[in-house]
Amino acid sequence: MIEMSEKQKMLAGEAYFPSNKQLQADRLNAKTVCHQFNQLSPNDYKQGMKLLKGLFGSTQSFWIEPHFYCDYGYNIHLGKQFYANHGCVILDGALVTIGDDVMLGPGVLISTATHPLNAEKRKKGIESAHSITIGNGVWIGMGAKILPGVTIGDNAVIAAGAVVNKNVLANTVVGGVPATFIKQIL
Amino acid sequence: MIEMSEKQKMLAGEAYFPSNKQLQADRLNAKTVCHQFNQLSPNDYKQGMKLLKGLFGSTQSFWIEPHFYCDYGYNIHLGKQFYANHGCVILDGALVTIGDDVMLGPGVLISTATHPLNAEKRKKGIESAHSITIGNGVWIGMGAKILPGVTIGDNAVIAAGAVVNKNVLANTVVGGVPATFIKQIL
Amino acid sequence: MIEMSEKQKMLAGEAYFPSNKQLQADRLNAKTVCHQFNQLSPNDYKQGMKLLKGLFGSTQSFWIEPHFYCDYGYNIHLGKQFYANHGCVILDGALVTIGDDVMLGPGVLISTATHPLNAEKRKKGIESAHSITIGNGVWIGMGAKILPGVTIGDNAVIAAGAVVNKNVLANTVVGGVPATFIKQIL
Repeated sequence: MIEMSEKQKMLAGEAYFPSNKQLQADRLNAKTVCHQFNQLSPNDYKQGMKLLKGLFGSTQSFWIEPHFYCDYGYNIHLGKQFYANHGCVILDGALVTIGDDVMLGPGVLISTATHPLNAEKRKKGIESAHSITIGNGVWIGMGAKILPGVTIGDNAVIAAGAVVNKNVLANTVVGGVPATFIKQIL
Repeated sequence: MIEMSEKQKMLAGEAYFPSNKQLQADRLNAKTVCHQFNQLSPNDYKQGMKLLKGLFGSTQSFWIEPHFYCDYGYNIHLGKQFYANHGCVILDGALVTIGDDVMLGPGVLISTATHPLNAEKRKKGIESAHSITIGNGVWIGMGAKILPGVTIGDNAVIAAGAVVNKNVLANTVVGGVPATFIKQIL
Repeated sequence: MIEMSEKQKMLAGEAYFPSNKQLQADRLNAKTVCHQFNQLSPNDYKQGMKLLKGLFGSTQSFWIEPHFYCDYGYNIHLGKQFYANHGCVILDGALVTIGDDVMLGPGVLISTATHPLNAEKRKKGIESAHSITIGNGVWIGMGAKILPGVTIGDNAVIAAGAVVNKNVLANTVVGGVPATFIKQIL
């Protein structure tokens, strides 16, 4: 029987060991690029965008303020006109697919990675990653956290500080910890 | 009819395009100074405070831990004895007026900038900024977020992680997401 | 009568002045080491771990992603297999004792330091610090905040964005602002 590599398991949403050599090498590459980007003066910003463009799975036009960090980069797919303010983190063990015209406020944290609730299992260093999909025209307010597996519908607005652990309908505003429905956008 | 520049609109609290050349140049300047500050060793801290002093609208004595970021700098006015811990961000499209003896915990996010709720309008890249006023003796706990247009009264305490989207009375403690009244300070 | 130094008061959980020369020097040292660590390329990561190992009170095996900041370092005691993701801050005026197999998500803020609620007292620059104890096998989700004096029991899980201002029982999940009981881990 041909076994899946840890990377293949990760990409398939199955439990995997991030301590695997290939995944460590991939993260080292991504974090080195992020470090180079974060060290650049704003005057060298075009060079910074090139660095990230080379790291990400796919991009169109985008602008990211430092400091930015991700885990692999290749799982991040950005639509056109993406903007992320200072201090955002995207942990992209699984796909993070972002539509057109999406804005992240400062300090937004997006994680596809999760760990077992059972500490004995968690201690073994196993984890899994679940894709996040963010629709077109979404605005994610400052300091919001987007949890593994979440889908956010088109044109939704995530209030500042919200913790989003369930899917969000298109054209709605959600907020709170955990996030709940606030209103329909007409 | 003499038209307002985008910068004048921004400062007047009206809708403006941050993609405007003058505003881009102003942000590039502010972010370059913040970058220089953030790169300094703590041993060169006096130099760092001079850099920020030259950037801000007005200051007296203050101490800011890196990393710190702002948008323009010139809209930030600090009273005496201001302290900001690591990782604070101030998005100062409008005035951010801070009284004496104010402390920000680590990771505090302050934003005057907001976007239209309607995605079609938001996509056009238009935004507006609303002044934030923080009274004397205010303590803002770690990871709190202060939203556009908010006024915080003297001696108020903002609990860790609070999202402040309404005015806060003097001598009160508020907390939660969104922040609500917790108690009077006697 | 032999008086306690400000450092001795701090370590004893009594009110102290952080502006004291010895404490300023200690913080300058810790922040210089953190800065050196944060400036390193991920390729020089072993050197980075050595820097932090020399700064902390005690360590076994650990991995910390940049940027990381602390106040003193010597009050941080880590069990084996400690992991902290990007952007964590530990304000360690008092002891921060962390068990084995503990994981911090990105943007976790831990503070032992607190200030008087009364603004007149706060203005004088006095504060106090209260020990934080984190048991074995604890997982602290991204953007969670741990407040002064808190003890977190073994194998507990702190949900993303939680603000923990009370002790947490072993084998429970807590979340929210402030954090409340969510469920027992079986």
